[in-house]
Amino acid sequence: MRIGLVGLGRMGQGMGARLLSGGHELLVYNRTAGKSGDLEKAGAMVAATVAAACKDREIVISMVADDAALNEVAAGIQASLPNDAVHVSMGTHSAGAIKALAAAHAEKGQAFVAAPVLGRPDAAAAGQLVIVAAGAPAALKKCEPAFSLMGRKTVEAAATPESALAIKLANNFVLGCAIETMAEAFSLVRKYGVNPQVFYEVMTEGLFAAPAYKVYGKLMADASFDKPGFTTRLGLKDIKLALAAAELVNVPLPSGSVVRDRLVGAIAHGDGDKDWAVLAREQARACGLE
Amino acid sequence: MRIGLVGLGRMGQGMGARLLSGGHELLVYNRTAGKSGDLEKAGAMVAATVAAACKDREIVISMVADDAALNEVAAGIQASLPNDAVHVSMGTHSAGAIKALAAAHAEKGQAFVAAPVLGRPDAAAAGQLVIVAAGAPAALKKCEPAFSLMGRKTVEAAATPESALAIKLANNFVLGCAIETMAEAFSLVRKYGVNPQVFYEVMTEGLFAAPAYKVYGKLMADASFDKPGFTTRLGLKDIKLALAAAELVNVPLPSGSVVRDRLVGAIAHGDGDKDWAVLAREQARACGLE
Amino acid sequence: MRIGLVGLGRMGQGMGARLLSGGHELLVYNRTAGKSGDLEKAGAMVAATVAAACKDREIVISMVADDAALNEVAAGIQASLPNDAVHVSMGTHSAGAIKALAAAHAEKGQAFVAAPVLGRPDAAAAGQLVIVAAGAPAALKKCEPAFSLMGRKTVEAAATPESALAIKLANNFVLGCAIETMAEAFSLVRKYGVNPQVFYEVMTEGLFAAPAYKVYGKLMADASFDKPGFTTRLGLKDIKLALAAAELVNVPLPSGSVVRDRLVGAIAHGDGDKDWAVLAREQARACGLE
Amino acid sequence: MRIGLVGLGRMGQGMGARLLSGGHELLVYNRTAGKSGDLEKAGAMVAATVAAACKDREIVISMVADDAALNEVAAGIQASLPNDAVHVSMGTHSAGAIKALAAAHAEKGQAFVAAPVLGRPDAAAAGQLVIVAAGAPAALKKCEPAFSLMGRKTVEAAATPESALAIKLANNFVLGCAIETMAEAFSLVRKYGVNPQVFYEVMTEGLFAAPAYKVYGKLMADASFDKPGFTTRLGLKDIKLALAAAELVNVPLPSGSVVRDRLVGAIAHGDGDKDWAVLAREQARACGLE
Repeated sequence: MRIGLVGLGRMGQGMGARLLSGGHELLVYNRTAGKSGDLEKAGAMVAATVAAACKDREIVISMVADDAALNEVAAGIQASLPNDAVHVSMGTHSAGAIKALAAAHAEKGQAFVAAPVLGRPDAAAAGQLVIVAAGAPAALKKCEPAFSLMGRKTVEAAATPESALAIKLANNFVLGCAIETMAEAFSLVRKYGVNPQVFYEVMTEGLFAAPAYKVYGKLMADASFDKPGFTTRLGLKDIKLALAAAELVNVPLPSGSVVRDRLVGAIAHGDGDKDWAVLAREQARACGLE
Repeated sequence: MRIGLVGLGRMGQGMGARLLSGGHELLVYNRTAGKSGDLEKAGAMVAATVAAACKDREIVISMVADDAALNEVAAGIQASLPNDAVHVSMGTHSAGAIKALAAAHAEKGQAFVAAPVLGRPDAAAAGQLVIVAAGAPAALKKCEPAFSLMGRKTVEAAATPESALAIKLANNFVLGCAIETMAEAFSLVRKYGVNPQVFYEVMTEGLFAAPAYKVYGKLMADASFDKPGFTTRLGLKDIKLALAAAELVNVPLPSGSVVRDRLVGAIAHGDGDKDWAVLAREQARACGLE
Repeated sequence: MRIGLVGLGRMGQGMGARLLSGGHELLVYNRTAGKSGDLEKAGAMVAATVAAACKDREIVISMVADDAALNEVAAGIQASLPNDAVHVSMGTHSAGAIKALAAAHAEKGQAFVAAPVLGRPDAAAAGQLVIVAAGAPAALKKCEPAFSLMGRKTVEAAATPESALAIKLANNFVLGCAIETMAEAFSLVRKYGVNPQVFYEVMTEGLFAAPAYKVYGKLMADASFDKPGFTTRLGLKDIKLALAAAELVNVPLPSGSVVRDRLVGAIAHGDGDKDWAVLAREQARACGLE
Repeated sequence: MRIGLVGLGRMGQGMGARLLSGGHELLVYNRTAGKSGDLEKAGAMVAATVAAACKDREIVISMVADDAALNEVAAGIQASLPNDAVHVSMGTHSAGAIKALAAAHAEKGQAFVAAPVLGRPDAAAAGQLVIVAAGAPAALKKCEPAFSLMGRKTVEAAATPESALAIKLANNFVLGCAIETMAEAFSLVRKYGVNPQVFYEVMTEGLFAAPAYKVYGKLMADASFDKPGFTTRLGLKDIKLALAAAELVNVPLPSGSVVRDRLVGAIAHGDGDKDWAVLAREQARACGLE
């Protein structure tokens, strides 16, 4: 297939490499130059503009960092997307932005799929992402060959593109809440003199033997927050996206509000660029432990 | 060893059978009669009073339902515990009650161990509990043969008996929060038209591939709340025990407060005797889904 | 009338003096001796026991500090209350304790009125309390002459004695929430460089021109927490009474949970014996201002 | 003075009439036509564009509904504001928008004052607003004659224009929290059978004898939500502005989060266009009363 790829961050580069490995013709574009070297070596062509990256494409994938970047590149894609081609937005965006973008594409008679992913850059490079996709059946079908190279699994959300974001954001929300919950639990046992490693073991050997608890619980037990896998600020961004997606459909998320408040507090105390497991420290402050 | 066992509910019966299987001499007592038949067949002797159940014992285990029951039987145990014997409280109690009981035993020069357990009655019957224990080293050592029959693992908490409760209650607290969090997440995706089973799959195949999410998430995805594994009322009792344990050492638990409020609401709506996964329905009500 | 008065704290002494000023025959009792001097000078007789304080009385008023004290004196009152006499509990107690006490009196065919008061000791001494009363109409009628001396106004709650507590505790709850809300608001404006006195003035000259905001807002604007009118610990006790009264009838109080958590945090930071306006400092800590 | 006024809603019209009454030369503009009739009769000139409304002005006042409207008119004002003239933004906007606008004006060397107001349209028409102002001293001084006609009082916030918004939004925040708190309190007493009017009286005669409680408490006691003074949706907008202003300076507002969640729930239940006192009904739903 002839595929365009807009956005060459770490995720985009991994995804692009996978697409090339499948023999697809890849045309890439990034808003800031100098990111395309590795993909060029692997056979990608480079476009100088978003419009150029859409030329003759069957699919144009956008993988950018936030709503502002999406709105910027999407304007170009809307202007240049060939008839019958599909724009596939794979970044993590607000449900509102995706809903608006879907409407804009629909107005032009263009096909649009939202397909946010679960997984870090290493999963992207290995083609092991979980892709949560939503859009018109024909458009989804057209994306299948690309999805099967980038992900180990594709999950169909519901009828509207924003429903894919709802799943992605809800999953992130559950993670944020699990982190806050662990933070509270660790502070409780610490006040009783319990070694955090002991509680970590009890928790993760039993009901909570899952990556979310093992990874973030370990960081808390070790008080290791300085090499962030995901920062407090990004955590706040994600929780706010979940709260906004919920508000759009009139859903209160009281647990999310608690997490939001704690993340704001952590940033107030200078921990914005730490790993968001630092909520354990923020909670410790709240009960006089630090 | 000569062991006394006070409290023959489903947990106590399973634990007693394991102790008999190890060749120990077991003397049992229950506040209401008629619960000892199976254990008698397996070789247990029956005491008519708490005092009698303490006679000549090296260890007296209490396994009762709540603080009120504990305080009742503990008065008898304090009065009749032989010198050098250990009282081992294995029920889930408030940290405050255990702290007070520890002080009462200490005043009489009696050894006391708190050893709440993780696991349901089937785990008790199979000797597969996780036992969280705290007390003086010599007392803990004396309990080892009994613990090794009842549990697959013994975890030492910290110096004070109540520290064992802190771990147990913190673990329950994390569970309650996970249930509330899932309830909120399901309502969010449902409002976007997503089939709950789809979200269940995404969540439990990834970061949350653990029993807590698989068990309770499934109940929510299936809207199956009528055969309670653990009721809303019991959930509220557990969360309140965690909040009280936290308050005793001046720890705010904002996520716990959210869970508490939702459980109270669920009871208000008539769901007190449903499985506490019914928080999914309570959250659905809060956003107009039901 | 022949009136018994059990409980001679600052409130009880003020109330007793008012009853004597109305020409009633007053028989007083206090659990710890040495509190009755002023009332004796004003004409009161002193009873050596609760039972003695009930002798030949038409009304026996109890005004004690907490549920434990109430349960202790109430046992004596139940045993000795003359036929046709009324026990009037005027302290601030849990709805649950009052409900249980009402049932106990009813079982003995004794009349019982709950009549908690709004107002500090100076209002009690001046007969300016607001009395919130609930009980059987005949019993309330019998109390009228006493109420009219002690209070400037009597408000009838609803049918059950505990309904009077619901009003009293709800009013305290609204106060706790107002204090927390102001604490949050002050931290917000302070972060923008606003002098707290300026915000105090805006707030209390407009929508919030009421004692709750003027008194506690001023303490916050002045950061004056060391001469407590009401301590953080007592505030926590009151909020917990409100939460418990709400839970008894299945009412979630999410704002109350927020206040509870902050009060616990303030105690954790050593502010338990400060005026509960110190929530302003606790909130300031939570956002890195202190 | 030569004054421009952009925005002729009910607030703007009242303010414009006051300025004319003081003998000032007023040039008005509204984005949608047909709003200027009354002011023309009173002597105002009408401008066809924002640029025209700035011509030869000493002060240009903008009084528009939200950030989007502000950004639209502010672009025109920045382009056309005479040297030495002052742009005074008097609407309720986000702290972030005002901060950005202040920076934009500063870059052009233009004077800018933020001066949000407390008071409804009737207060505007009567010149009885409270004006909260912030900006450079010289600019504030220039606005004085206009402020003294429009308001009964001008309060100076702090150094930055956005500090004025912080005060305005914090005051609204306190109101939203008071409404939620009352909603919770009413549900509590109702469950005990108390007539809401009785609780209303106790509350508003004592610690809470202030407009916020009298006005909104009455609506709740009467269950009168259908003639909104201020709707649930607008309430949510205001609380979100407060939360956003707080987040900008890293302040968690847990009470605000509770209000936000309840407002979202009320909208979910179809009460978005009711008076926001309808939170009483939303809370009643949450505890099974409706």
